[in-house]
Amino acid sequence: MNLPFTSIVRELPATVPFIPVEALERQSGKKIHTRIGANESSFGVSPLAKKAMEEALQTIHWYGDSECYDLRKELSRVHGVRMDEISAGSGIDECLGLVVRAFLEPGEVVVTSLGAYPTFNYHVSGFGAKLVTVPYRDYMNDLDALADKAREADAKMVYLANPDNPTGTFHSAGALHGFLEKLPEDCLLLLDEAYIEFAPAHEVLPLNPQNPRVIRTRTFSKVYGMAGARVGYVLAAKETVQAIDKIRNHFGVNRVAQAGAVASLKDPDFVRQVVRDVEEGKKEYQELAQKLGFSSLPSYTNFVAIDVGSEEKAVAIREALFEKGVFIRTPQVFPLSRCLRVTVGTPEERQIFAQALEEVVKEMSITGDTTRR
Amino acid sequence: MNLPFTSIVRELPATVPFIPVEALERQSGKKIHTRIGANESSFGVSPLAKKAMEEALQTIHWYGDSECYDLRKELSRVHGVRMDEISAGSGIDECLGLVVRAFLEPGEVVVTSLGAYPTFNYHVSGFGAKLVTVPYRDYMNDLDALADKAREADAKMVYLANPDNPTGTFHSAGALHGFLEKLPEDCLLLLDEAYIEFAPAHEVLPLNPQNPRVIRTRTFSKVYGMAGARVGYVLAAKETVQAIDKIRNHFGVNRVAQAGAVASLKDPDFVRQVVRDVEEGKKEYQELAQKLGFSSLPSYTNFVAIDVGSEEKAVAIREALFEKGVFIRTPQVFPLSRCLRVTVGTPEERQIFAQALEEVVKEMSITGDTTRR
Repeated sequence: MNLPFTSIVRELPATVPFIPVEALERQSGKKIHTRIGANESSFGVSPLAKKAMEEALQTIHWYGDSECYDLRKELSRVHGVRMDEISAGSGIDECLGLVVRAFLEPGEVVVTSLGAYPTFNYHVSGFGAKLVTVPYRDYMNDLDALADKAREADAKMVYLANPDNPTGTFHSAGALHGFLEKLPEDCLLLLDEAYIEFAPAHEVLPLNPQNPRVIRTRTFSKVYGMAGARVGYVLAAKETVQAIDKIRNHFGVNRVAQAGAVASLKDPDFVRQVVRDVEEGKKEYQELAQKLGFSSLPSYTNFVAIDVGSEEKAVAIREALFEKGVFIRTPQVFPLSRCLRVTVGTPEERQIFAQALEEVVKEMSITGDTTRR
Repeated sequence: MNLPFTSIVRELPATVPFIPVEALERQSGKKIHTRIGANESSFGVSPLAKKAMEEALQTIHWYGDSECYDLRKELSRVHGVRMDEISAGSGIDECLGLVVRAFLEPGEVVVTSLGAYPTFNYHVSGFGAKLVTVPYRDYMNDLDALADKAREADAKMVYLANPDNPTGTFHSAGALHGFLEKLPEDCLLLLDEAYIEFAPAHEVLPLNPQNPRVIRTRTFSKVYGMAGARVGYVLAAKETVQAIDKIRNHFGVNRVAQAGAVASLKDPDFVRQVVRDVEEGKKEYQELAQKLGFSSLPSYTNFVAIDVGSEEKAVAIREALFEKGVFIRTPQVFPLSRCLRVTVGTPEERQIFAQALEEVVKEMSITGDTTRR
């Protein structure tokens, strides 16, 4: 029997957005001791979240609240938006998929930067829509080029991660206001703000669900340290939240994860401390890069992209670090692929990374070059 | 701005498959103390699973393995199928949605019983496919009628929950073999086996991933007591698993949940004990029904459907029980809607339910009638 898959599924390539570190370990037989490649938070979860999750584990035999009421209520309080302007999902990846599914018919066009978040691209292809890209410009999302391309390609949506992954760069509110002005009026902006808590609050585009063009996604996987729990959310106009409600996996958010996310929001001190710790770590990484003669990008996230000059060098360094038990990633698309993308670890992890990187650079006789090509 | 949703999403009704008990509590201001309406397992999780989840909580800041390798390996061992014949998802609901998405083009037809699992129907509509139903026959999925209808409607897929929800009835391997013979050759069978662990093992249709027509879904939400954790899986031909891999949410399964599911599979004694406890509870419910003059259906699940004679009575009893803090459900579609669907609780919960039901029946002067209409 020839299995009768849909035409979209039949034509999709057999690729995955990311190979997990566990699979890399299995394939190589190598054990990773320093996991600073997936922008997970080495600073863990808030003690309040930990306690809430331990308690919730006692009732794991019960489904979670499919309305995620307590979580949306708390998010509503924190963000000053209405509960019906928030949709929770099992991780930002699910949220991105739902937004794509709600808006994009097969063949419709999304514009994004070449080398932006692969999982978003995966969803676009997965629903048969078409991705059109523009290059980064000096490691920044090129807002003018994105807007021009959106007009040229008659795009229904532009996807922008801000702060950006994998570069770490950031566009402030002023730049985004200008971008929205320039974007065709009927073009939606999907603003992926997974790392927004690491950006300066006064420079963040204010929330305005009354503007239905802007759909924002956020996550508990980064500053809140709950990547394994799978909680993300959409901030959007009520109509968009209602549309997502027609297609989302209603009981999909883990009960323990919901409890942890609610508690996390009640511990702003913890978040501030993580942001401070990450700032310190980023400075260390940037100084390390400089010392080795590499340039590094300004970062508004929990990682630093270190430009080592060529894709070949970057991949060689990544592989050599892996051999030493240190996991980092390198972006897949040129010219970002000249960078090492290194998550800010604990002070101990940073020390291990620094030593390993210095050894590798020395062993491979890699010469840094502070000028960017 | 008129938001440009896809035509499928625009035309979908604003309904949800199930209103969660938490929402019913919020709407009514009433607090539920006996939660036996969602077929959650009152017997909780295996002590091994509990321990594994407590440990995994320590690394919740790390993403779970997107390949769910350990889980699929353990499932492979337990079921005697290959790892590449298993796809894990965040709950059986997500798995059902992925199967629908992998196979059904908009407009294509799925046949199922009228009153079967609403969440499956939700996914079918959600992807623009068409649901065609046949009535239950004496509270059983009517296999002959399903096969006939599949032929008549040129169905691409038949959906069958076996053991069935909300009736609890079951078709043995022999009946299903006959069904597969009768079904059009190119029609897929999606066999939802959420409750399979409660059916007699020797009567279960043997696993045979070499037959690509049959796609099976299973869950850790029922006998394993992990409803809040969100782990389900698909057992199917390798080609189907590969197709799902092209569209699934790769990092979607919670890290703690994965650890709990793996540990659950290593504790068959616990599962056997839950099945025994549930058997005892079902007998109690059936005797209670008889005592009150109601008929009850044979059950191969962790719940019992008690036929109280009319939809009006069933709804009235459900509401009166809710007032007393006891949550049960009644199926949405006639004639199943004449039943109370009551999950087997702990002995204490069963006692509370029995007393509450007796009181309600007495207060409402409801006369039982042992003959089914």
